[in-house]
Amino acid sequence: MSSARTAEISGPTHAFAAVFAQLQPHMAALDLFLRAQLAAFEPEIRAMADYCIDTSGKRIRPALVFLSGWRGRGTPAPELVKVAAVVELVHLASLVHDDIMDGADLRRNRRTATREYGPTPAVLLGDALFSHALHLAASFPTTEVCFMVAEAMRRVCAGEIVQTMRRGTTNITRDDYWRIIDLKTAELFRVSCHLGARLAGSPEAYVTAAARFGRHLGIAYQIYDDLADYFGDERRIGKTLGTDLASGKVTLPLHVLMDRLPAGERQALEDEICGRQPVRMELRLRQMQDGRIFEAVAAAVQDEIAAATTALAPWPNEAPTPLLLGLCDVLRGQVAGLQAKSGT
Amino acid sequence: MSSARTAEISGPTHAFAAVFAQLQPHMAALDLFLRAQLAAFEPEIRAMADYCIDTSGKRIRPALVFLSGWRGRGTPAPELVKVAAVVELVHLASLVHDDIMDGADLRRNRRTATREYGPTPAVLLGDALFSHALHLAASFPTTEVCFMVAEAMRRVCAGEIVQTMRRGTTNITRDDYWRIIDLKTAELFRVSCHLGARLAGSPEAYVTAAARFGRHLGIAYQIYDDLADYFGDERRIGKTLGTDLASGKVTLPLHVLMDRLPAGERQALEDEICGRQPVRMELRLRQMQDGRIFEAVAAAVQDEIAAATTALAPWPNEAPTPLLLGLCDVLRGQVAGLQAKSGT
Repeated sequence: MSSARTAEISGPTHAFAAVFAQLQPHMAALDLFLRAQLAAFEPEIRAMADYCIDTSGKRIRPALVFLSGWRGRGTPAPELVKVAAVVELVHLASLVHDDIMDGADLRRNRRTATREYGPTPAVLLGDALFSHALHLAASFPTTEVCFMVAEAMRRVCAGEIVQTMRRGTTNITRDDYWRIIDLKTAELFRVSCHLGARLAGSPEAYVTAAARFGRHLGIAYQIYDDLADYFGDERRIGKTLGTDLASGKVTLPLHVLMDRLPAGERQALEDEICGRQPVRMELRLRQMQDGRIFEAVAAAVQDEIAAATTALAPWPNEAPTPLLLGLCDVLRGQVAGLQAKSGT
Repeated sequence: MSSARTAEISGPTHAFAAVFAQLQPHMAALDLFLRAQLAAFEPEIRAMADYCIDTSGKRIRPALVFLSGWRGRGTPAPELVKVAAVVELVHLASLVHDDIMDGADLRRNRRTATREYGPTPAVLLGDALFSHALHLAASFPTTEVCFMVAEAMRRVCAGEIVQTMRRGTTNITRDDYWRIIDLKTAELFRVSCHLGARLAGSPEAYVTAAARFGRHLGIAYQIYDDLADYFGDERRIGKTLGTDLASGKVTLPLHVLMDRLPAGERQALEDEICGRQPVRMELRLRQMQDGRIFEAVAAAVQDEIAAATTALAPWPNEAPTPLLLGLCDVLRGQVAGLQAKSGT
């Protein structure tokens, strides 16, 4: 998720603002709830936990919980706020561990936990956030939340492990790529939608549909995010382009580029990915600008958005449906924004 | 727990063998159960999880579960086996993270996960083991197991964080020391006893008593383990003496030594702990041999064992009581063994 966190769904698209404006009371309630959790941490680590529970993230996963459990405006149901806090804490914990592994100094213009406290306390602090998320999950009347969230955590970790182990290699098929993002990103999107719909008392079939929607939206989102790593606006996403290539991570845009290069050139690129040659970043970014690469990757995003939309098609009149579909519009707008910027 | 893991309760004491011989079917069932868990891990990380779930540990926490839930010989109850697996997985996960932080290469004569796979996958692998432990915990009919284990995990982490943050300082009172070991070690001992007694259907008051027993035994065990770091048999515990001092960790023996040195000498020792001067290990180990230091620390172990024993005193006829008290005998024997070795 190391790139997911910097881009998130953001920017001034109208659809985005329209969807998120409705969630203001929910996000305010979530903030209050998360702050109140600090009291549960041992006094010795409270300030450190506070540091990690910052409120500057986009909170996509809590938004998915609230939207999937949508029953109209008004005060958000306490159990939705709690489960939104659970998925956000799991996400924040994974960011703390990501930052250690990436050696990242800054996140959202603040020092990362690993920079602030050192990597050793940061490993443990991530563990403590994970633990507290599960502790909260276990405060529901049944074990379902805990069961699903714990499994999702394991799957997120599995995805991250596979990605990490494959860094600096080209030993990764497109199926591998899909599998990795399904695990590392889509899983928590899926569970957020499942639990939101479930806690709002939706029919079983709708819970399943919302979960399927979340999964495809998550895959679409991660592909978009991987695209933004090559085509984004450096100032807006707050990082230099091509960091995935620089770190030897083969994502879909790089896959497509490799496939389109003649054999000799492909070998040269593979040598760069595997660290046998220095990365010629300027050349690679220029090659990426070939419109067919953007097109192929954007088409994959659209396919996943279409699959997400299809999942909800039988349920046009359920309250969450139009809001969730609104998120698809947001993502389409984000992709279009990249295209406009890249001029393809 | 970095030193706890190397010493564990072991050795040829008779009491130990007597208690653990009764647990052979339980430990065999636990092994089978843990092996069967591998199927739940994503195929991509199964071999790595397998590597971590080794069977060479002493499994004190599972033993506490089985003994606290003791109802006589025979096939162990499946729910006891499952909860024993939960606490062992939490413990194994914490070892994986400990080894990263300590930069440890070997554990039980095998490469550590961080050495085998690299620190980044090892962070995630520890997370995956934690997650699976909680996933298993959520498969009980009620949320109690998950609730307690998640909280215990957070408290273990809090204890480890405090210890880590205080390394290389002498800014740690005896109360701080007790608090740290209460969190990092005694908490999981406590929860193991609580859940064992609870799942065996013991009366509420006995569950509370068993938990209190576990807590004091855990504190006693950690103090013993800290004592062994200065007085142990290097060959048997498999590490050099004085590693706590070498890493700037102030435990009870060092506290007592500091208190007994004249002001000027104390300052010199503090300089060594804080890294302002190189550690004069030979001198310090010799100073430790002063019998009064061993005596003072051993007395603290005995006090905690006494508190553990007292917790069970009203329940002489409950089936687990004699077995749990047998563990106290084991620990007393271990301390006596150190004393014999140190010749004090």
